[in-house]
Amino acid sequence: MMIPVEIIKLKRDNKTLTKEHLSFFINGYLSGEVTDYQMSAFLMAVYFNGMTEEETFDLTEIMLNSGKTVDLSYINKIKVDKHSTGGVGDKTSLILAPLVASCGIAVPMISGRALGHTGGTLDKLESIPGFRVDYSIRDYKKIIEKVGVVMIGQNSDFAPADKRIYALRDVTGTVDNLSLITASIMSKKLAEGTDAIVFDIKMGSGANLQNLKESEKLTKYLISVSKKFGKKAIAILTDMREPLGYKIGNWLEVEECLEVLNGKIVKDLSKVNNLLSGAMIYLGGKAKSIEEGEKIAEQKIKDGSAYKKFLEIVEEQEGDVSYIKDWKNYKQDKYSKKILSEKSGYVREMNAYKFGLASIELGCGRKKITDKIDYLAGIILNKKCGDEIKKGEMICELWAGDMEKIGRAEKIITEGLVVSDKKPKERKLILDIID
Amino acid sequence: MMIPVEIIKLKRDNKTLTKEHLSFFINGYLSGEVTDYQMSAFLMAVYFNGMTEEETFDLTEIMLNSGKTVDLSYINKIKVDKHSTGGVGDKTSLILAPLVASCGIAVPMISGRALGHTGGTLDKLESIPGFRVDYSIRDYKKIIEKVGVVMIGQNSDFAPADKRIYALRDVTGTVDNLSLITASIMSKKLAEGTDAIVFDIKMGSGANLQNLKESEKLTKYLISVSKKFGKKAIAILTDMREPLGYKIGNWLEVEECLEVLNGKIVKDLSKVNNLLSGAMIYLGGKAKSIEEGEKIAEQKIKDGSAYKKFLEIVEEQEGDVSYIKDWKNYKQDKYSKKILSEKSGYVREMNAYKFGLASIELGCGRKKITDKIDYLAGIILNKKCGDEIKKGEMICELWAGDMEKIGRAEKIITEGLVVSDKKPKERKLILDIID
Repeated sequence: MMIPVEIIKLKRDNKTLTKEHLSFFINGYLSGEVTDYQMSAFLMAVYFNGMTEEETFDLTEIMLNSGKTVDLSYINKIKVDKHSTGGVGDKTSLILAPLVASCGIAVPMISGRALGHTGGTLDKLESIPGFRVDYSIRDYKKIIEKVGVVMIGQNSDFAPADKRIYALRDVTGTVDNLSLITASIMSKKLAEGTDAIVFDIKMGSGANLQNLKESEKLTKYLISVSKKFGKKAIAILTDMREPLGYKIGNWLEVEECLEVLNGKIVKDLSKVNNLLSGAMIYLGGKAKSIEEGEKIAEQKIKDGSAYKKFLEIVEEQEGDVSYIKDWKNYKQDKYSKKILSEKSGYVREMNAYKFGLASIELGCGRKKITDKIDYLAGIILNKKCGDEIKKGEMICELWAGDMEKIGRAEKIITEGLVVSDKKPKERKLILDIID
Repeated sequence: MMIPVEIIKLKRDNKTLTKEHLSFFINGYLSGEVTDYQMSAFLMAVYFNGMTEEETFDLTEIMLNSGKTVDLSYINKIKVDKHSTGGVGDKTSLILAPLVASCGIAVPMISGRALGHTGGTLDKLESIPGFRVDYSIRDYKKIIEKVGVVMIGQNSDFAPADKRIYALRDVTGTVDNLSLITASIMSKKLAEGTDAIVFDIKMGSGANLQNLKESEKLTKYLISVSKKFGKKAIAILTDMREPLGYKIGNWLEVEECLEVLNGKIVKDLSKVNNLLSGAMIYLGGKAKSIEEGEKIAEQKIKDGSAYKKFLEIVEEQEGDVSYIKDWKNYKQDKYSKKILSEKSGYVREMNAYKFGLASIELGCGRKKITDKIDYLAGIILNKKCGDEIKKGEMICELWAGDMEKIGRAEKIITEGLVVSDKKPKERKLILDIID
């Protein structure tokens, strides 16, 4: 017979746990035999001693099997999803999901909400009036069959063990462990029925993991667990030291996606989006290489098929299509303030973490779970890192529902802005591609 | 404003906590602002990263102040207590408490129950019919004023934070941390109103801490925290590889104490008892040195004053004095079995841990909190380590309420017994004296 405290002690003493140990502990947690306080002590022991690849794989499988899994084999297409570790201004999901679907690849996409300083795809989608993200598994299957793509939130039937454990990690300081992160991401991804996954691993101040070595290790874990479950996987490490694109917020980010879907090229955003799309198209069997996939992605934007598919998604998921089509008439928040440069020179730093925190102050995210989001709030950049700027010229503009919020956000933004005399070296946007 | 998870993260990241951090966390736990699962994650982080001496001191003070403290200054004597880290056959409290009190030193003694493989003073006292250990603080003060000594259990008004945290540590694998052990011991000792403490730090298989380095560190912590609170302290490191004395159990240990109090010299037990008593007499101001204190201790046994004081305690705490006076008529359990040596030679090992576990099987301790103790059960040794033994000669005798228990205990005992051809080196009983 297993006893919870003995399993805690094994992990505490850096012994390797068997699948039976982990299964007893995780399933015991769901059944009430293992208490919250025992789980949190266990998670802290994992934080300190880590888990082997085998343990991580077992944990993922146990969490996956704690809930339902979707079988999408009735759809005669390869299914490819993308997962980002989270960034600031990272809106690629909204562009690449319809884009890749327009290539005849199924995109079963389950996304999250704003977390910490990073935005969430669900909140962005909900800035479109009427847009629903809370469909049942039955409807999820119907939509993906009909449209070839679906964008919804975490279903409570998927990996319930992860849901409970994640909530506990959040309040016990045990979020930042690679094995726990891997099992949490993968148990949900594996439940949704995808065949292949492209991971966007964000690096730098705006990322959730800021350490290069940790990010590389996470990449290795994600790919190895994917492969153990028979899923194809590619990971792309991208820079997240400055916000991606020019717009940060919820509707503001949808707006920038609509600009891109209508042919505008936003240097960093388009580059990352097309590369991720290219990798998805390659894994979806519609290109012989990532490079060829990238070219197809560009084409699908140019010929309007990606935009057309986006409108289909909005219509199918009950969003207001006329609101979308009207995007060129900017929907603006009540108040705004322009942030001007105090000196002439070159923008050296626009710290993504600070911009993320500032956007929460403006109302784009939540400090408490009960906070309401202001969908029109956000930041519009006028300059990006490396750009020349004159004294008094606008760096960015802040938008919010009241001036107090703008005041608090401005204070944070200015901490993250550096203008220097010398033109900084161009930064590498794509750091690595791993498969 | 402090947030529980931020304090967990500070300890997790090996930062030093201020007194304000610890106070918020411990008092928040008592008020419900900090949850069980946050406390257990915190305790596990402490397990891994430890605490500085300053943090340990602060933690002790906060736990002490979570409850009542007794002021014994109305008693015009120096108050000295003893604390043992726990052993097998360790019955010195029952001898030294009356002995030291008979010297005109007040002994406010708060003891515990059997824990794991080690016995508990309270359970031994309760083997005396009628003996009460559950007095209120008011009665505790009255008894010590009248008799000069009192022997009771942990009062729930003392250090309630420790009581709740200890229960949590027990089921989350976070017992074995020196700072947590120190704060737990000291918050209770400081509440009882003593002026000085003698620590008996047990070493070897029968001790709770089996590692020499850890024991030395614990000694250092206990003495330094005692001194920070203005208490005199001496620590004595004693060997606990074999049981102390010849009798293990509850009434059996009272019996052996009565033998010693009536003049019998039991080599190891008398040595440890007289040394601890000597240190207490020295700290109580009735001797100029520990050595002089030891001589006084021997004298107090010889002249019968220690025994007389013991009878006074029993009477005052409602125990059956006639049952005590009748101790020479052995009170025996229903069944017994003699364990005989399978070969001739010298007793090399009588593993104290195994003897402790065996005594629980016989009914001397508890496996579950609800288990009832058999006060007459136990083990009587016929030989001690180093003694010569012939094949077929008795090593020890097991006593219990049924033969099944004896069978289980015998199995454990034999694992802990080694008889060898060569006479083993005499072991050092007193390993160190530290003040």
